[in-house]
Amino acid sequence: MSEATSVLRHLEQDFDQAVARYLEFLRIPSISTDPAYAGEVRRAAEWLASQLTGLGFTATLHATPGHPVLVAHYPGPDGTPGGARESEGPHLLYYGHYDVQPADPLELWDHPPFEPTIVEAEHGPRVVARGAVDDKGQVMTFLEAFRGWHKIHGKLPVKITVMIEGEEETGSPSLPDFLKTHRDLLKADVAVVTDTNSWNIDTPAITTKLRGLVYAEVTLKGPSRDLHSGLYGGLAINPLNALTHVLGQLRDDRGQVQIPGFYDDVVEISKDELAAWKSLGFDERRFLSEIGLKTASGEGGRHALERLWSRPTCDINGIWGGYTGAGAKTVIPAEASAKLSCRLVAAQDPERIVAGIKSFFEARTPPDCRWDIKFFGQSPGISVATDTPYMSAAKAGLKEIYGRDAVLMGIGSSIPVVGWMQEHLGLESILLGFGLEDDRIHSPNEKFELRCLKNGILSHAAILARMAKLKADAPARSGRAAT
Amino acid sequence: MSEATSVLRHLEQDFDQAVARYLEFLRIPSISTDPAYAGEVRRAAEWLASQLTGLGFTATLHATPGHPVLVAHYPGPDGTPGGARESEGPHLLYYGHYDVQPADPLELWDHPPFEPTIVEAEHGPRVVARGAVDDKGQVMTFLEAFRGWHKIHGKLPVKITVMIEGEEETGSPSLPDFLKTHRDLLKADVAVVTDTNSWNIDTPAITTKLRGLVYAEVTLKGPSRDLHSGLYGGLAINPLNALTHVLGQLRDDRGQVQIPGFYDDVVEISKDELAAWKSLGFDERRFLSEIGLKTASGEGGRHALERLWSRPTCDINGIWGGYTGAGAKTVIPAEASAKLSCRLVAAQDPERIVAGIKSFFEARTPPDCRWDIKFFGQSPGISVATDTPYMSAAKAGLKEIYGRDAVLMGIGSSIPVVGWMQEHLGLESILLGFGLEDDRIHSPNEKFELRCLKNGILSHAAILARMAKLKADAPARSGRAAT
Repeated sequence: MSEATSVLRHLEQDFDQAVARYLEFLRIPSISTDPAYAGEVRRAAEWLASQLTGLGFTATLHATPGHPVLVAHYPGPDGTPGGARESEGPHLLYYGHYDVQPADPLELWDHPPFEPTIVEAEHGPRVVARGAVDDKGQVMTFLEAFRGWHKIHGKLPVKITVMIEGEEETGSPSLPDFLKTHRDLLKADVAVVTDTNSWNIDTPAITTKLRGLVYAEVTLKGPSRDLHSGLYGGLAINPLNALTHVLGQLRDDRGQVQIPGFYDDVVEISKDELAAWKSLGFDERRFLSEIGLKTASGEGGRHALERLWSRPTCDINGIWGGYTGAGAKTVIPAEASAKLSCRLVAAQDPERIVAGIKSFFEARTPPDCRWDIKFFGQSPGISVATDTPYMSAAKAGLKEIYGRDAVLMGIGSSIPVVGWMQEHLGLESILLGFGLEDDRIHSPNEKFELRCLKNGILSHAAILARMAKLKADAPARSGRAAT
Repeated sequence: MSEATSVLRHLEQDFDQAVARYLEFLRIPSISTDPAYAGEVRRAAEWLASQLTGLGFTATLHATPGHPVLVAHYPGPDGTPGGARESEGPHLLYYGHYDVQPADPLELWDHPPFEPTIVEAEHGPRVVARGAVDDKGQVMTFLEAFRGWHKIHGKLPVKITVMIEGEEETGSPSLPDFLKTHRDLLKADVAVVTDTNSWNIDTPAITTKLRGLVYAEVTLKGPSRDLHSGLYGGLAINPLNALTHVLGQLRDDRGQVQIPGFYDDVVEISKDELAAWKSLGFDERRFLSEIGLKTASGEGGRHALERLWSRPTCDINGIWGGYTGAGAKTVIPAEASAKLSCRLVAAQDPERIVAGIKSFFEARTPPDCRWDIKFFGQSPGISVATDTPYMSAAKAGLKEIYGRDAVLMGIGSSIPVVGWMQEHLGLESILLGFGLEDDRIHSPNEKFELRCLKNGILSHAAILARMAKLKADAPARSGRAAT
């Protein structure tokens, strides 16, 4: 019996106790956005720290301007303390978060959100609670995998750093600075991020594509003051008419974004990737019908998953100007504003898109008007190399547990920590999560299937065994890109 | 010496007393929009009623759901009571309003708004007070003309009804119903509306063109709920992109409104009218520079006054949708809305424009979306016939006082009472006013030049003499239109 097999057998037997620990974690209302819960947020971090300490980690809560970041080190199988010198296998950094979204509206919950309840449903028992999956349930998958290895072999098979933050649900305001100032503390070979979904309950997934974001706010300023449309209409420029005329040109009739240079750096996905996505049986009709639509919008002639995962977009996210109260007011306003954002894909350069947005608007400046354009943060699209030894280990571990190949999927939004770890720590991530699309994260009756929890625990345990067999300096970036 | 000459001489001599009465009227803070001033509003109506009663009128305050409408009848020179039987000359209905706008912000006034102050300026003494011109000063012009006739000849030269309302500054909510239910009380041959401007201090004007209005609110509804732009962007229709795309088509690159049938009924002004407007020396550059602009917008190739007075427009007056707070939120909203209005000119049919707006949007319905379109009232454009005996009398009276021909001007907005009197009483209006463009109506330091006040009084007195010479059944509509 291999080292891993005995761990997996133990984890199966110990699962009820694992669930009990998981429920204990869920009972802590660690709502990061509400200052009234700051003590509970800290308690969640302390609970995790004590769990990790019990498994041989040295755990520290690092103060930030907001909630603490828990960093814990496991010295490696040969006893080398974290960061002191290289052990034989690679050094893994696990990321998760211990904070949760607020639970309101409370009246829509079938059970109190912080009194986790086990409910029988189509996939067997599930746990209903705030944070059931996002991200407490996901954090428990690797924590219990560690516990299994520790219990059976008295040690973990590789050197591990765990970083679990408490501000993810408020946009991780303290994390970028924390990464920048703690590079030494967070040294590793590759990151494992556990905050994403499986393809479905039977099929594991690794997320390999994330879209980036450039977010802009534009204001068109025209007349020096608001005007009466009767006294000036027909002679004075109306910023509302002018702004809508310009915004209406953001996409052409075929859904192509008209920002200069927008597609210049977009990399078409490979035939293999496209074929793999097409084989997933994504039900576009069902996807659209759930939001009241029948017809796909956007770029024609492309598969739905391609549009969602590997094509850039430009959406207007907000607009305002003039009179917006009840009834009629005949004003020509002095200015009009909109917010818009582009989802980016690798290898689009956010700076180049920022410049493109500016020149799109500047080239369409109406007479006597001027633009005020602001940008709110920007992140590149990310495409994780699929041919590294770490990816192979993760895929093999998942296949061992599920009996099926993992789907290499994309998600249309960003997970900012992935970009930040790349930028500030030089770390590539493997996005390995066990949620399901219908888990109702951020909504009432959030849930996590116990089958997903168990498969997550077993998968992490199996993957650890395979990671331990890699060399300490295995490349985390694509072999193709390096040639 | 003619009957009028002795009246005019008396009015010159009595002007100081007329000013004293005018200041008394201005001291009543008849702010119609503020319930705290309801008693003062009524006091203003009572003050006017007692003035008119002293001149031989029978005056009644008619209750409405809001503030009272003062209706006063002068029986006619031969003593026939108002409405009983026809006197020899025409029956005139004078319209004005006794309510005023609120005075705030008080700190921007150089003098207390209800303590009228006489100030010397470039045109001689002026009165600074709330309501100085709008409309108390204007009402005093015909009231004092009546007084002059009454004082010198013991009677007025024609049958007169006076209707002075107290809700003009709040949109005259009670007036349409009042007109409908008091048709008999308000019988007359023509209305004289005194609430507009002279061309400049030396040049009288009669306003002959008013633009009408159709006001719409459109909402485009798409997905059944707000969506995350990362998870749905590229596949789900975005009502903000779609709405701006449609609104951007309201006008073409030459400023032509694209609503179907929009220009079908628009009557081009005559060469004579255009020539007359061009001769006015309207300073387009100055007009625009005062609102921070250099370039005329709208329909190219047309004179500025034509665009403002006799061409229809389509302006967006408000827009909203999605996220409009600070910072970034990546939402694809379920819906997006805008308010828009068309200024209409005679003989555009508001109902036809309503239908055109509906079909403009319906023809541009994005897939899976629907429009919700509401209309807030509608009024036709008005073009007053310039060749009636009443107009000739008014022009001649103005020329007698000013020594110059009156300018026949337009204004780009509507004066709803003119349309309502046309619709409910079958009455045409002569718009005869004595304000100046810089009188700061509705603003701090509203003023009226005493020279304008005096010229207004004298003009009304001179016009009354000429009206008295017309037949009782002189046509108020265009002779051209009747043929």
